[in-house]
Amino acid sequence: MNKVYVVGIGPGAYEQMTVKAAKVLGECEVIVGYTVYAELLKEHFPDKEYMTTPMRQEESRCRMAFEEAQKGRKVSMVCSGDSGIYGMAGLMLEIGKNYPDVEVEVIPGVTAALGGASILGAPLGHDVCLISLSDLMTPWAVIEKRLVSAARGDFVICIYNPSSRKRKGYLARACEILLRYKDRETVCGIVRNIARSGEEREVLTLGQLKDTEADMFSTVFVGSSETRVVSGKMVTPRGYKAEKEPVR
Amino acid sequence: MNKVYVVGIGPGAYEQMTVKAAKVLGECEVIVGYTVYAELLKEHFPDKEYMTTPMRQEESRCRMAFEEAQKGRKVSMVCSGDSGIYGMAGLMLEIGKNYPDVEVEVIPGVTAALGGASILGAPLGHDVCLISLSDLMTPWAVIEKRLVSAARGDFVICIYNPSSRKRKGYLARACEILLRYKDRETVCGIVRNIARSGEEREVLTLGQLKDTEADMFSTVFVGSSETRVVSGKMVTPRGYKAEKEPVR
Repeated sequence: MNKVYVVGIGPGAYEQMTVKAAKVLGECEVIVGYTVYAELLKEHFPDKEYMTTPMRQEESRCRMAFEEAQKGRKVSMVCSGDSGIYGMAGLMLEIGKNYPDVEVEVIPGVTAALGGASILGAPLGHDVCLISLSDLMTPWAVIEKRLVSAARGDFVICIYNPSSRKRKGYLARACEILLRYKDRETVCGIVRNIARSGEEREVLTLGQLKDTEADMFSTVFVGSSETRVVSGKMVTPRGYKAEKEPVR
Repeated sequence: MNKVYVVGIGPGAYEQMTVKAAKVLGECEVIVGYTVYAELLKEHFPDKEYMTTPMRQEESRCRMAFEEAQKGRKVSMVCSGDSGIYGMAGLMLEIGKNYPDVEVEVIPGVTAALGGASILGAPLGHDVCLISLSDLMTPWAVIEKRLVSAARGDFVICIYNPSSRKRKGYLARACEILLRYKDRETVCGIVRNIARSGEEREVLTLGQLKDTEADMFSTVFVGSSETRVVSGKMVTPRGYKAEKEPVR
């Protein structure tokens, strides 16, 4: 049976993809993806045929992948981070209904929450919510309801798509909502360009985060009430109870 | 400076770890970890010194890693899945305050939510909460508050540690709480032994999940109101709006 792979390539650097992802990309003939990710991959997989579409043309991109797979070619659809978290896996499965002779295999990858967390320290040590601030495909009322619920549940919150050219001020708006429920001193973090050139991290308070600019390559972390700063890193303890020490 | 790595090895199979994680493990002399994960690694990294402690002895395990690193040896502390999500990164950073001459580097990995999701289809296509049902280190009241908040926010919910020998019935209890807010027909999924032998997946309703046994090697997914079954897979659409098709 013909097969198409949906591959999460991790946050950017080749080394952040899984061994499986690297193997699948190495073996396939055609790599389909958003232009920016294709460029990241060309350095490591130069001898592939690349097919790209710009942002907002996700459905045509999927059909392109299925049509190549139907010809019997080995095809990978690539996504930054994970293939499932705000990725293309769901749309590929939906559109795959029209291509019953092509099997879809989903290959997971390190999503920005995990990649960014490793740079900040260990902000995701306990229960966490991922929320995207993009209202291109989700009404703002739903986003607001999720921010409120996440704050009420005292989750660590990882914010995807905190800003874009058309959505300036969304992060500040989200912080204002969170500040109704959470302390101004709540420990937060922001990471830019995870595992790419220009990688930057900052640990700050929720009050400060409200006045901070994020761009579309930023991932934002808002701590729970337990999150603290440990040697400059953002840490949410899992809450291991002290062990009984052996007498020395 | 001496260095210790906290490495997320992914859900189990060698191929699910990142290229970076495989490289770091290949280069280090000592691998410290929970007994079960050490056994998984020995096949691929046979020429290492393995130091293990059983479960519940996480603090001694961390000190062991730092003490080896202080001798100038290259040491990795390994965690299943990601190093940060319910992993050892936070505790390592905390205990690292006592070893200021040892630097801690956190290497992320594919956590069970991502690995399990790829097997079920694409359940995590939109905003998601991760909640652990383990009350070893978290009061049940906090867990309940988070389940309620996640349900009110209509998040997809990924449940870690749904059960253990001492915590039979916790998943049913969690489902009962969720059923106060969510439809019985909500699409759910359960994955056992992700990327290991005995891997199994099941797509079912929340009503059915309540009467399903999970074990400590299971990861459970409870859909949002948008989650649906597509060709037998569990899919939460990101909600891409239909594109304008070019005239053909």
